[in-house]
Amino acid sequence: MRELTVGIDIGGTNTKYGIVDRSGQVLSHGSVSTTKHEEFIDYFKSLAKALRDEFQKIEGEYKIIGVGVGAANGNYYKGTIERATNLKWKGIIPLADMFREEFDIPCIVTNDANAAAVGEMIYGGAKGLKDFVVITLGTGLGSGFVCNGQLLNGKHGIAGEVGHTSVNPAGRYCNCGKRGCLETYVSATGIKRTVYKLLADHLEPSELRGISFDNLTTKMITESAMRGDIVALAAFEYTGRILGMKLAETVVHTDPEAIFLFGGLSLAGDLIFKPTIKHMEANLMPLFRGKVKVLPSGLQNQAAPILGASSLVWNYLDNQPKAEVV
Amino acid sequence: MRELTVGIDIGGTNTKYGIVDRSGQVLSHGSVSTTKHEEFIDYFKSLAKALRDEFQKIEGEYKIIGVGVGAANGNYYKGTIERATNLKWKGIIPLADMFREEFDIPCIVTNDANAAAVGEMIYGGAKGLKDFVVITLGTGLGSGFVCNGQLLNGKHGIAGEVGHTSVNPAGRYCNCGKRGCLETYVSATGIKRTVYKLLADHLEPSELRGISFDNLTTKMITESAMRGDIVALAAFEYTGRILGMKLAETVVHTDPEAIFLFGGLSLAGDLIFKPTIKHMEANLMPLFRGKVKVLPSGLQNQAAPILGASSLVWNYLDNQPKAEVV
Repeated sequence: MRELTVGIDIGGTNTKYGIVDRSGQVLSHGSVSTTKHEEFIDYFKSLAKALRDEFQKIEGEYKIIGVGVGAANGNYYKGTIERATNLKWKGIIPLADMFREEFDIPCIVTNDANAAAVGEMIYGGAKGLKDFVVITLGTGLGSGFVCNGQLLNGKHGIAGEVGHTSVNPAGRYCNCGKRGCLETYVSATGIKRTVYKLLADHLEPSELRGISFDNLTTKMITESAMRGDIVALAAFEYTGRILGMKLAETVVHTDPEAIFLFGGLSLAGDLIFKPTIKHMEANLMPLFRGKVKVLPSGLQNQAAPILGASSLVWNYLDNQPKAEVV
Repeated sequence: MRELTVGIDIGGTNTKYGIVDRSGQVLSHGSVSTTKHEEFIDYFKSLAKALRDEFQKIEGEYKIIGVGVGAANGNYYKGTIERATNLKWKGIIPLADMFREEFDIPCIVTNDANAAAVGEMIYGGAKGLKDFVVITLGTGLGSGFVCNGQLLNGKHGIAGEVGHTSVNPAGRYCNCGKRGCLETYVSATGIKRTVYKLLADHLEPSELRGISFDNLTTKMITESAMRGDIVALAAFEYTGRILGMKLAETVVHTDPEAIFLFGGLSLAGDLIFKPTIKHMEANLMPLFRGKVKVLPSGLQNQAAPILGASSLVWNYLDNQPKAEVV
């Protein structure tokens, strides 16, 4: 009988789910609104119903062996979502317990960057690697660490907040309440802020001068840079320089074999990778130079968040103690 | 029969060794010169002879079950010392193989800060903790990480070089070839440099104005500060501010339960702990605030390097797969 897992990615707007096999094939998928229901229980019921409907569509004999959930502020140890700023339900939501009760199968919850790291290990470019980092470049900057083959959770289940290391203590305001955090410079939002800073400081003409802050996207900045727009090019150089400088600090902490960049900004190819690698190497303690690869994620597609979430289940089951022969 | 281990700390001047039991009692100890012999093999022979003599002194029945070695640039995976700048023997020294051949027992090699971290876990203040960091404040700044109960070695066996994260890319020159590394500010040497910078920049009288750079020690600066010397007090405040700022970055990487400070500077008590904790908390992402303890090492005595090295053996044996019952 085929063993299948459910991967769920709870985003601020939509919740995407998929039924995934061990090889990473998504057999069936769909989504429900994250924002429609005022009460969490009503949202959960709509999600559970959608999943049961989805199970009906799978052909042949199979068994659903677990649910993996990636969500901002997901806590691996407690199986909860805690005070997520991007969701309307406040307080602590016991998500894993609810799934366990509803479907009688294990449920693993973690934050989206940790899910991306496990996804990279099980299905992506980190197959066989035991020490690596995944940096997710979306609205913010998330990070997930695998050390010695295990997801690094930390004491309180919140390890890997590299997006909130400091670039400049007197720098840009951050959602976390501090100033100058890495994600205010290196993320989809960060590069927009950099474009606007450059447009303010410099006189160069730029096709980006005609676009409002709200309308500006990473894709537009990338396309402008590819057309040679001087401000867009400078924005990528600046973003890569800061990312490289900070990755050098991450490298000397955990000595990874590779760092994978995931998400919109990482799709800009050489525009982001070249300055990142150059400045990482220049800022590394010489002992580490030339040892750490910076690579695009092997999961650059729409299904990546679902794969990442579903991979939590395989990772969990692989790490359970084997039954002992007495 | 009592099981005993050998702990060896290879310093630039002396090599200290001790025979240690599981409880951390040092039954016998001594030292040999690290610098006397031009050839490594002659040094090794003198050390092996000293150990055999030491074994004779132990009373009762016992078995030596392993050797642990802490040394700058010790590589855990390879059991080697590689290009250590503080030793006269160049190239790669296969230390673990040589001990194994000489005594027919396992030999574990790692750098001194990693040995300190394992020592803290086995004998010190980190008993029972699974996620913590040890910062050693000596001539430089070393760091050892334990994550999920395991020593963090990294892909190349060189994880934990927090001393070479950046405070200021245009700052003080560092032995590693870069500028502005943390250890140029926070270490026994770092605080001396800070005292000299303060004496250069300010007009305040200070009892430290009568002491040469070469003669100035952490102990003198501590004693001056305790007598209220304004420059010595400012040097501790500055050192703690920088250490706190950088520890905040380390915390968001690995989410530890506690950070232990070890070595000369950490003996200054509130002078160093107060500003360190204050600035760490102020620079932490709010999610982490109030969660991480900063504590003095539980191994603040002469035998600490020997205990740290010997603990590598217990840690190694504890983590071996248990024999399976078939």
